[in-house]
Amino acid sequence: MKTSELYNLLGINLDLAVEAHELLRGEAGREIPGVKMDEENYDHSTVKIITILDEQGEQIMGRAKGTYVTLESPELRVNNKMVHKNISEVFAEKLKQILPLNDDSVILVVGLGNWNATPDSLGPKVVNFSMATRHLFQYAPQELQQGLRSVCVLAPGVLGITGIETAEIIKGTVDRVKPDLLICVDALAAGSVERINSTIQVATTGINPGSGIGNKRLGINEETMGIPVIAIGVPTVVHAGIITHQAMEQLFNHLQTTPALQHVYAGLQPVAVNEIINKVLEPFGGQLMVTPKEVDDQISFTAKVIATSLALALHPGMPPDQVEHYLQ
Amino acid sequence: MKTSELYNLLGINLDLAVEAHELLRGEAGREIPGVKMDEENYDHSTVKIITILDEQGEQIMGRAKGTYVTLESPELRVNNKMVHKNISEVFAEKLKQILPLNDDSVILVVGLGNWNATPDSLGPKVVNFSMATRHLFQYAPQELQQGLRSVCVLAPGVLGITGIETAEIIKGTVDRVKPDLLICVDALAAGSVERINSTIQVATTGINPGSGIGNKRLGINEETMGIPVIAIGVPTVVHAGIITHQAMEQLFNHLQTTPALQHVYAGLQPVAVNEIINKVLEPFGGQLMVTPKEVDDQISFTAKVIATSLALALHPGMPPDQVEHYLQ
Amino acid sequence: MKTSELYNLLGINLDLAVEAHELLRGEAGREIPGVKMDEENYDHSTVKIITILDEQGEQIMGRAKGTYVTLESPELRVNNKMVHKNISEVFAEKLKQILPLNDDSVILVVGLGNWNATPDSLGPKVVNFSMATRHLFQYAPQELQQGLRSVCVLAPGVLGITGIETAEIIKGTVDRVKPDLLICVDALAAGSVERINSTIQVATTGINPGSGIGNKRLGINEETMGIPVIAIGVPTVVHAGIITHQAMEQLFNHLQTTPALQHVYAGLQPVAVNEIINKVLEPFGGQLMVTPKEVDDQISFTAKVIATSLALALHPGMPPDQVEHYLQ
Amino acid sequence: MKTSELYNLLGINLDLAVEAHELLRGEAGREIPGVKMDEENYDHSTVKIITILDEQGEQIMGRAKGTYVTLESPELRVNNKMVHKNISEVFAEKLKQILPLNDDSVILVVGLGNWNATPDSLGPKVVNFSMATRHLFQYAPQELQQGLRSVCVLAPGVLGITGIETAEIIKGTVDRVKPDLLICVDALAAGSVERINSTIQVATTGINPGSGIGNKRLGINEETMGIPVIAIGVPTVVHAGIITHQAMEQLFNHLQTTPALQHVYAGLQPVAVNEIINKVLEPFGGQLMVTPKEVDDQISFTAKVIATSLALALHPGMPPDQVEHYLQ
Repeated sequence: MKTSELYNLLGINLDLAVEAHELLRGEAGREIPGVKMDEENYDHSTVKIITILDEQGEQIMGRAKGTYVTLESPELRVNNKMVHKNISEVFAEKLKQILPLNDDSVILVVGLGNWNATPDSLGPKVVNFSMATRHLFQYAPQELQQGLRSVCVLAPGVLGITGIETAEIIKGTVDRVKPDLLICVDALAAGSVERINSTIQVATTGINPGSGIGNKRLGINEETMGIPVIAIGVPTVVHAGIITHQAMEQLFNHLQTTPALQHVYAGLQPVAVNEIINKVLEPFGGQLMVTPKEVDDQISFTAKVIATSLALALHPGMPPDQVEHYLQ
Repeated sequence: MKTSELYNLLGINLDLAVEAHELLRGEAGREIPGVKMDEENYDHSTVKIITILDEQGEQIMGRAKGTYVTLESPELRVNNKMVHKNISEVFAEKLKQILPLNDDSVILVVGLGNWNATPDSLGPKVVNFSMATRHLFQYAPQELQQGLRSVCVLAPGVLGITGIETAEIIKGTVDRVKPDLLICVDALAAGSVERINSTIQVATTGINPGSGIGNKRLGINEETMGIPVIAIGVPTVVHAGIITHQAMEQLFNHLQTTPALQHVYAGLQPVAVNEIINKVLEPFGGQLMVTPKEVDDQISFTAKVIATSLALALHPGMPPDQVEHYLQ
Repeated sequence: MKTSELYNLLGINLDLAVEAHELLRGEAGREIPGVKMDEENYDHSTVKIITILDEQGEQIMGRAKGTYVTLESPELRVNNKMVHKNISEVFAEKLKQILPLNDDSVILVVGLGNWNATPDSLGPKVVNFSMATRHLFQYAPQELQQGLRSVCVLAPGVLGITGIETAEIIKGTVDRVKPDLLICVDALAAGSVERINSTIQVATTGINPGSGIGNKRLGINEETMGIPVIAIGVPTVVHAGIITHQAMEQLFNHLQTTPALQHVYAGLQPVAVNEIINKVLEPFGGQLMVTPKEVDDQISFTAKVIATSLALALHPGMPPDQVEHYLQ
Repeated sequence: MKTSELYNLLGINLDLAVEAHELLRGEAGREIPGVKMDEENYDHSTVKIITILDEQGEQIMGRAKGTYVTLESPELRVNNKMVHKNISEVFAEKLKQILPLNDDSVILVVGLGNWNATPDSLGPKVVNFSMATRHLFQYAPQELQQGLRSVCVLAPGVLGITGIETAEIIKGTVDRVKPDLLICVDALAAGSVERINSTIQVATTGINPGSGIGNKRLGINEETMGIPVIAIGVPTVVHAGIITHQAMEQLFNHLQTTPALQHVYAGLQPVAVNEIINKVLEPFGGQLMVTPKEVDDQISFTAKVIATSLALALHPGMPPDQVEHYLQ
């Protein structure tokens, strides 16, 4: 049974394009038609840029045409502010390349997710760390505006708290404020344990229904919002089924590569494997999403890195060694 | 010099209609044309209902035609949950009389103010304590909806945090959600020390520019929102100038009623008094708003009372002895 | 390979006596010498009372002589305050039976754990919800003390925050305050997914080194503290290895009970299984402890239940329907 | 009537030595026997060093022999991280001069006050921002210890939360940990509006009963603790009576210096003034302590400055431009 089929069985979406890409390429490392991938290596991080070029790429990858930049660094999980500053500067450069900005662009940064649920609080935390400037533009003298862009921020909450679809609040605000660009930050679900809180994805395609860990039902993208939407996400949870699945994969691998056990591998039925996984997860209705015990710290780290990167990328006049003075 | 002139000099607005009313009636207790006042006494609270009937009343009172209900209880400041429950039930009854509701009304409750500034966090705290039901209506079976109204909630933040005028976010959301009634909760400035965290006002006129402690610039009322707007407010701060002014009043009173000092009273120039007050307040730019040391607890108490009252008033099927089970 | 050996290989301690007991009894349900187990069923919970009677029991169970009461209820995870109140009353009755109390006992309740790490914040949260009365005894009139016991509380933090072994701060405080009983509340590690945030254990043996999720190095028990120590714990995390292990168990079970696959089961080497599990967990150094995405809510629920139970058990004059008015 | 008598009447303690000194010197600027005062001026702050030299000084100043260093800067109240960093470096130098330290000293930093009451939360916030190193010394390799001292921290809470006298918890911990120096951080009451959140005092005399805003009953000083105790404090509240008193002073000054009103001044009875002040404050039982509306931000600023100064002063190997990387 293919891994992708198993994900379907478990009802798991891969939020990260880079994971879908890895899955599709498989071990053979074959090229995927309509999809381009570049990789850049930095001191403390690796950046992968996946471009879905055409409809064929869209169909195979199961997501929209556009650019998906992924920054990977296990050091994001470790408390080292100097390394995090370095990662922020790398990520800011990538954002500058990808964000459709003019000097006088107005940008709305939206922190999606539930501030009362730590693994889902990444978006609101980024908003908390960020400094709005839009109101200064309306009232402050010209010289204060030098090198700054007009940024406003919003943490609209989640349906379970507000009783309102998040996309409705955002759309309503967009209609009034009329920004030129919408940047959404959200917590995602990872397809492997290694990804949790160690990967930041930015996608030019916005957010589509069902992605993220908060079960959005409406898309937040150029089609629904009427302006370009950039989505920044960090996987903060993993389906417990994926942990068991990773174990199974290793087991099958062992069986397959051990001559004396190869007949066993041949005999195992994939459906049985799914049954087993589902049985293990039963106590949480098969929907057990887990997060590391250290979730509070790790989310603070990535939220700060993203807020720093956004400040550097959105405000060209912000010197990297002073950016933290401009964060909340 | 009249007290009201002094307030003007200090740039102080009286957020509470009941204070404006008291000021206007003065010690003589004279009737104010175009204004009606009723008073009801309960075990742990007093309720005053001021109705501004016509344009004459509007002009004299300096606020819009409508009903202003004020619940007063010093016990709001004391940690006694049973007394607070009693006050909530009284206030809920007043809300039921004043809120323009049908069985199938959709209500948007907005918590104004800054969650990072304790004295301004009343609105967001009420929203935190409240339970949204609107999303349940769209997806839950009929029997779950029995006795509940469709309520959604929002804490839009303040201009200094978001870079967006609060009224813009609310108007945008109102345009999308199309509620039948908007209820805004906000922290106010008191005109006397006794009022702080001991008074809840509800007004059928919404919120007008400049009121509250967050310096709103746009009104949030039926005119701007297109639907009825009810404003609930609690004074949580007082201008330090008012404390000194209260002292001065007592001093003048003493001079005036002490025969040997009456000539002194006659000789004091009001302008000198204002100069003195302003000089004392200089270190904070003359704009020192203060709040009691116990502000955290007191705001929690009033926020819980308001959230409880709203739950009782908005959901007719909610039994008073179980309402706390429906709060967050 | 036996499950217990596997736990040893993974370096996993079973914090819950009831899990050790289940493991030892196995499927055969055999009696364990020196150990007694009783079970009581309630509307919303099951209570299991394990008594380790003698040294033989101690050795087999790997823990000290004493009583271990476990309350189990999956409903602890669900937001239903009325069910939680019922569970609190059941748990309070068990506490009354187990706590060595006189009318004039002084009790110190200590919330162990890290308030900055949600899964480890159970203890501090219980302390936050609880009301100290000891200072009232020293200064308040007799009639206020009716039906109350003298309770003081402490949340000493963790070594990583304070730089001080938690047991040192507690011992220092015990030496000064001289309470008659120490009650410690702590977050534990579960031996199965089902246990997380659904089980409360109370043990008369105190806390021993290495238990809980915060890696205490010194015991907090009668031997070190000089007074009886009761430990209350809730498993809030699970070793990711246990999730994979539960999956493997199911897999092996399937192989063993499917005639066509029995030869496979025979051929699998337990060491290989451990290697596989460890490989899967490598990205987190083999020490990945996970917690459900809903950890914030679930910990609030159990903390409130424990605080309520303690208030009912420690203060005989507290009426069950008013106990929430005495919580913070 | 003398100002100091008025303070006595109002039951107000002056927590700041510099205020007592100013009061005693009066406008005449006379020298106070047994007391020395030096002043140093920096870019963003002024430092005053008051030394009480002998018993005569003790009696006049109403506080113990020792050194009282006061840093004053209205810029502490303004959000400017670069200015705050500069102030931290100045304050760190003063601490280095005053703290009795050896290379291998063990230091216990205690944050006094109530974390649930914003104006009283300064001490716990300093502890939150600070990094303990003592546990690293016991387990980490030598090279990690270079340039660091062994620091542990504690936030013991307040009597109303724990039911335990704060001094008891500290003494118990001191007895176990055996530090060489105790540093206590606490919120104070100011004697004038200008002082609030703009002044940091450090005293070599520890903390004496009745000082601070939390009503300690036991002293925390060398006598009670057996080791040197340094007290760091910031006034965060002011008695509302002081605001009215400052107004009265200005009024009297006006009367006194205006020829036409001098007879009035002569005629005013000080007792009447106190009666007036007390009457104004009646609604809060005469004990109304107030704090500026911006208390949350201002306390964060000073807590961060103090934590930064402590890190610089306690760890000689900490480079000033990296110190923020070592804060929490």
